[in-house]
Amino acid sequence: MKEKRIEEKNFDDQVEGRNSVLELLESGKDINKIYVTKGEKHGSINKIIAKAKDKKVIIVEKDKRQMDQIAQNENYQGVIAIVPPFEYAEIEDILDVAKQRNEDAFVLILDGIEDPHNLGSIIRTAETAGVHGIIIPKRRAAGVNSTVNKVSAGAVEHMKIARVTNISDSIQKLKQEGLWICGTDIATDTYYYNQDLKGPLGIVIGNEGNGISEKVKKNCDFLVKIPMLGKITSLNASVSTGIIVYEAVKQRIRK
Amino acid sequence: MKEKRIEEKNFDDQVEGRNSVLELLESGKDINKIYVTKGEKHGSINKIIAKAKDKKVIIVEKDKRQMDQIAQNENYQGVIAIVPPFEYAEIEDILDVAKQRNEDAFVLILDGIEDPHNLGSIIRTAETAGVHGIIIPKRRAAGVNSTVNKVSAGAVEHMKIARVTNISDSIQKLKQEGLWICGTDIATDTYYYNQDLKGPLGIVIGNEGNGISEKVKKNCDFLVKIPMLGKITSLNASVSTGIIVYEAVKQRIRK
Repeated sequence: MKEKRIEEKNFDDQVEGRNSVLELLESGKDINKIYVTKGEKHGSINKIIAKAKDKKVIIVEKDKRQMDQIAQNENYQGVIAIVPPFEYAEIEDILDVAKQRNEDAFVLILDGIEDPHNLGSIIRTAETAGVHGIIIPKRRAAGVNSTVNKVSAGAVEHMKIARVTNISDSIQKLKQEGLWICGTDIATDTYYYNQDLKGPLGIVIGNEGNGISEKVKKNCDFLVKIPMLGKITSLNASVSTGIIVYEAVKQRIRK
Repeated sequence: MKEKRIEEKNFDDQVEGRNSVLELLESGKDINKIYVTKGEKHGSINKIIAKAKDKKVIIVEKDKRQMDQIAQNENYQGVIAIVPPFEYAEIEDILDVAKQRNEDAFVLILDGIEDPHNLGSIIRTAETAGVHGIIIPKRRAAGVNSTVNKVSAGAVEHMKIARVTNISDSIQKLKQEGLWICGTDIATDTYYYNQDLKGPLGIVIGNEGNGISEKVKKNCDFLVKIPMLGKITSLNASVSTGIIVYEAVKQRIRK
């Protein structure tokens, strides 16, 4: 899949491909309109058109050249739904989720995840792990778009995600609210499974190539590492997130 | 990234991208030749060229259009190494690695991983976790190609991977060699962290959509599950592999 880089703009988001648009229609979410390629009358496109009419969603036919320009992915299969942009949350909203569930706050802080696939996979993991919310930076990082939504298996719909100007400031805020901040660093002595991860907790995950920035690292209460027993010296960011987040889950729920 | 589908053919394989080619050069493996884009003289390309000359690997300059045609990934970064096709191992080779390291056998069995990105990420995780080898099926599953190699961060170069006709037969063989076989199943009562994963062990990971097949599940000595605390009911296959494999690592190495 070829993906155009979409960064900062507060664009209308879009959902592409027949299955994805069909799922969207069935979810009952708001849809601004649906573009279909003029002349494409496959069975599944007809099904989408019928369902859209049923739900009073506007359908606009465009010729293939225009559709190619609108599409963010190459394989949009003749159908693109335009939806209202993802609504980011505030840090307070995340902490409110913890309060509502009557649980110790459990927050992920992503210090510059750039790959939308990693972001989507991390959101999916966070949702299954009962994380209350995710903090991502506004700059030099992937934001929530249709690719992220797709890779997350729809978990973005159930997750509070705050987009902040300064990760270090957000960490300070979380500390003031009583959270312990856990960072990852290959140079520390502490294996993640030897660290107490119970209580109100924020876990910081670093950038795919560079890890956590030095400034953010200094703001962490403690640093942990994952044992590396082979020749390769790092894990995929979404895999290491899963390993550490689920260690925290285990410590929290294990009887 | 646009990827051409490469399936079963016994083609010369290729490794693309600067870091991947550099790691390949450092691994000491056979390289048929290295293509570089004419005129690309970045620092890291020069480093690759110097190292290749040092190792007497043939370097061929091609113009960008030709390179684009050779490349299997869009972001090949001006350098493509052509290598002999991936050499699959036998199950015996995997067990030999364990014996040579004087460790309890630690094997991954992938029951139908289809996505090359998942396969690559799983191989990377397995390598960092000290897994001795991976068993994959010949049919209806991703095989090792350049995408897998790249996503694995070069870990395929350090991992024994056996490709078998029948996963159940392979599991029987592993059992005869004294391995305990651990499967994953959402319907079981046992959380993975409550299961003893020490000793000779094979962990079975199921297909992305369908999990482990019923037949293979029946062959497992025990089944474990990962707690799912949210609305999404499954994890990405490479993330769940990381979580279970690293639980086994912890149990094995923790003092």
